[in-house]
Amino acid sequence: MRLRTRHMLGIAGIEPDEIELILDTAESFAEIGEREIKKVPTLRGKTVVNFFVEPSTRTRSSFELAEKRLSADSVNFSASSSSFVKGETLLDTARNLEAMAPDFIVIRHSEAGAPHFLARHSRCSIINAGDGAHEHPTQALLDAYTIRRRKPLAGLRVAIVGDILHSRVARSNVLLLSKMGSDVVVCGPPTLLPPGVEELGCRVCHGVDEALEGADIVMALRLQLERMTRGYLPSLREYAKLYGINAARLDRAAPDAIVMHPGPMNRGVEITGDVADGDRSVILEQVTNGVAVRMAVLYLLAGEVESEAAA
Amino acid sequence: MRLRTRHMLGIAGIEPDEIELILDTAESFAEIGEREIKKVPTLRGKTVVNFFVEPSTRTRSSFELAEKRLSADSVNFSASSSSFVKGETLLDTARNLEAMAPDFIVIRHSEAGAPHFLARHSRCSIINAGDGAHEHPTQALLDAYTIRRRKPLAGLRVAIVGDILHSRVARSNVLLLSKMGSDVVVCGPPTLLPPGVEELGCRVCHGVDEALEGADIVMALRLQLERMTRGYLPSLREYAKLYGINAARLDRAAPDAIVMHPGPMNRGVEITGDVADGDRSVILEQVTNGVAVRMAVLYLLAGEVESEAAA
Amino acid sequence: MRLRTRHMLGIAGIEPDEIELILDTAESFAEIGEREIKKVPTLRGKTVVNFFVEPSTRTRSSFELAEKRLSADSVNFSASSSSFVKGETLLDTARNLEAMAPDFIVIRHSEAGAPHFLARHSRCSIINAGDGAHEHPTQALLDAYTIRRRKPLAGLRVAIVGDILHSRVARSNVLLLSKMGSDVVVCGPPTLLPPGVEELGCRVCHGVDEALEGADIVMALRLQLERMTRGYLPSLREYAKLYGINAARLDRAAPDAIVMHPGPMNRGVEITGDVADGDRSVILEQVTNGVAVRMAVLYLLAGEVESEAAA
Repeated sequence: MRLRTRHMLGIAGIEPDEIELILDTAESFAEIGEREIKKVPTLRGKTVVNFFVEPSTRTRSSFELAEKRLSADSVNFSASSSSFVKGETLLDTARNLEAMAPDFIVIRHSEAGAPHFLARHSRCSIINAGDGAHEHPTQALLDAYTIRRRKPLAGLRVAIVGDILHSRVARSNVLLLSKMGSDVVVCGPPTLLPPGVEELGCRVCHGVDEALEGADIVMALRLQLERMTRGYLPSLREYAKLYGINAARLDRAAPDAIVMHPGPMNRGVEITGDVADGDRSVILEQVTNGVAVRMAVLYLLAGEVESEAAA
Repeated sequence: MRLRTRHMLGIAGIEPDEIELILDTAESFAEIGEREIKKVPTLRGKTVVNFFVEPSTRTRSSFELAEKRLSADSVNFSASSSSFVKGETLLDTARNLEAMAPDFIVIRHSEAGAPHFLARHSRCSIINAGDGAHEHPTQALLDAYTIRRRKPLAGLRVAIVGDILHSRVARSNVLLLSKMGSDVVVCGPPTLLPPGVEELGCRVCHGVDEALEGADIVMALRLQLERMTRGYLPSLREYAKLYGINAARLDRAAPDAIVMHPGPMNRGVEITGDVADGDRSVILEQVTNGVAVRMAVLYLLAGEVESEAAA
Repeated sequence: MRLRTRHMLGIAGIEPDEIELILDTAESFAEIGEREIKKVPTLRGKTVVNFFVEPSTRTRSSFELAEKRLSADSVNFSASSSSFVKGETLLDTARNLEAMAPDFIVIRHSEAGAPHFLARHSRCSIINAGDGAHEHPTQALLDAYTIRRRKPLAGLRVAIVGDILHSRVARSNVLLLSKMGSDVVVCGPPTLLPPGVEELGCRVCHGVDEALEGADIVMALRLQLERMTRGYLPSLREYAKLYGINAARLDRAAPDAIVMHPGPMNRGVEITGDVADGDRSVILEQVTNGVAVRMAVLYLLAGEVESEAAA
């Protein structure tokens, strides 16, 4: 069994058996993260360009650690050091990076579709590390991995709460979890729920208490505070009161429900500190698992490129 | 045959046989860039400080990839993270970097002569990655390499078009190509042609059509848009009309002429998109070749340092 | 003999025998820095996160070179690329970095106590690379190493001159040198001397000539120029005249006195150029030694972590 693509652009483009393959592979890499020496020679001599046009701590570092644990060489670009300041187009910058013959480009970009655009013009593997409000496939994969370590992915009740409209994390998670046979409900302020979101494979619920009722998985999304100034929200206090995940609300979920958050958290806004730090929270496990899942994605895509070359 | 220097400060300081040596060496490294595993252990245990006081995507990444393919360790500095914000002098910062005993310092700096200044105070090898409007020797070398893969370097007609005044790329290319026996003509708005430029070894031509007549090599330079606001140019539209390289103009060049650009490009200003992407364009080849040429420079300078140590 | 901690948070937390151990270990690593190949496989497979929330050239690069010479993998964060812009708390960012299971976090932070805070929540080793005006232990260790190569650490007369109030370098040096049995006097403008500084283990002296009288070690501190605007100082010229280390003043010190400065220097303010570059200056030796001392700290802490794991 192999992936049927050499790019990781989104959950929309992969099938349940490919998802299972990635999660199974991640399991064997997770074991490496617990060893004294966390490094394997798998991608020795391969080069990964981490091309982050939006700032990021955890995703960039998670990829970079995954690359180093696989013995790949990492070359980093951030928006501030890139030619974008000089007015070059994304396509030209990407073609230039690609002309230097790296093996992978991991791209985060503020515009939806940027990684897909690169993939059409690139001989190397493109990995989407978040494109606008579109997709963030490795986040959904690490979330699925974190869930699967506790519960089978099929038949779960999943509640995703917050700013659904701007969240690539929500989109990728809805796509993945519904593909795997779970029942996903999204919930948030009406101004932050995109019309037609049901087409992704979820139900919509305006009341958070109703959404959490019997949920196996409760996923709080980051509230990007700049939404406030753009008139999407009346106030943070109001948001926290109506949609924040707190202990009382969590009581409505299943007794063994787990709480997830993609980070970075606004404590006291979308989630209370006691819930974030509580024994149902798997938020730091998500971060730990992210490295193993990204190792798996890099490893499997590299295999795909080699198979293409051999064919 | 060896280099006669342990620094790469400019084309002005090297002779035709050294240029040939670098290009010959680059050829063997280019082959590495096409392998499955692109890495050789040549500079294992050597450290390169990439000290970029001006922003750069392609040059910094090209050097970093060259270093990693040679198994050197790279340490990066950019202007924003450096002590320059704290008011330390360039010499003190450089002496400090040098005191940490790296093997190479690759420096880009806004002031002409900064690398030469460092070289006078440094035990390690200094490589000029662009100093003000002065020189950018590895760019000229990669351009020469790209030309030589198609045509011998002697006896060519070369037209360099654009902002000659502020272009270190133009200066280094005029020096290199005239040294190798080609006939170089520079062309651009009178405000962007430095008085006495002929002394570098080129002819001056005010009309672009005349400059391109029969040219084997057409090199468009980036127009730095901030020149506009400083009164060098009336308008971008005017510039594009008078000096932009387009298909009609290119018809005046030799039938097998190639089109070059050091990047980043302003499409529709100094070059039209169809020419940049056309079959005479070698612009992306330049980028690919840059990695091999920089590997060659690092490799040859390292040999020079070892010979000095042995002597 | 081993360290009694797996963190390096400050000189306040370590004992004289541990200091001697670090300096002895640094001596063997200094030898590596003079070899043709400066790399040893000691920390192969270990990961170090360099988490610099304040800008730094020399400290960050010194750590990064130390890490690479020990064959560790380095992952860098600077303030601008971090999630701090997104409003996440330091604790959450640190927990996230820690969840990715690095072996070390080297942290520079503008708030005193930040590394201690991290250490309380972290399974990996924390190294303080400067926390506010509190401590900068590896700087004091490299200073002690530089002194010890010339004079035994006990019984010295040490004069530290400048902005004592805001200087973590001064604090760590006073703590270290007094612990080792030297007599430390601090001197600076009354507005830049913290009340009660004697409790750290030093004497206070308002006149610089008196402070330098017979001194074996003269240490000038960087004057952060932004202090001027905050009313701590009348003018730079006044400061240079009253507290700057110049040749005439240096004549009061012992005949074999050495001059130190943690960098970056303001030439002509806290130290004159002729003294900084003179034959009593060990300023660049400090920089060179910094790499060896940081290698020793990383090496010894790694041993400590392994012992804990074995126990």
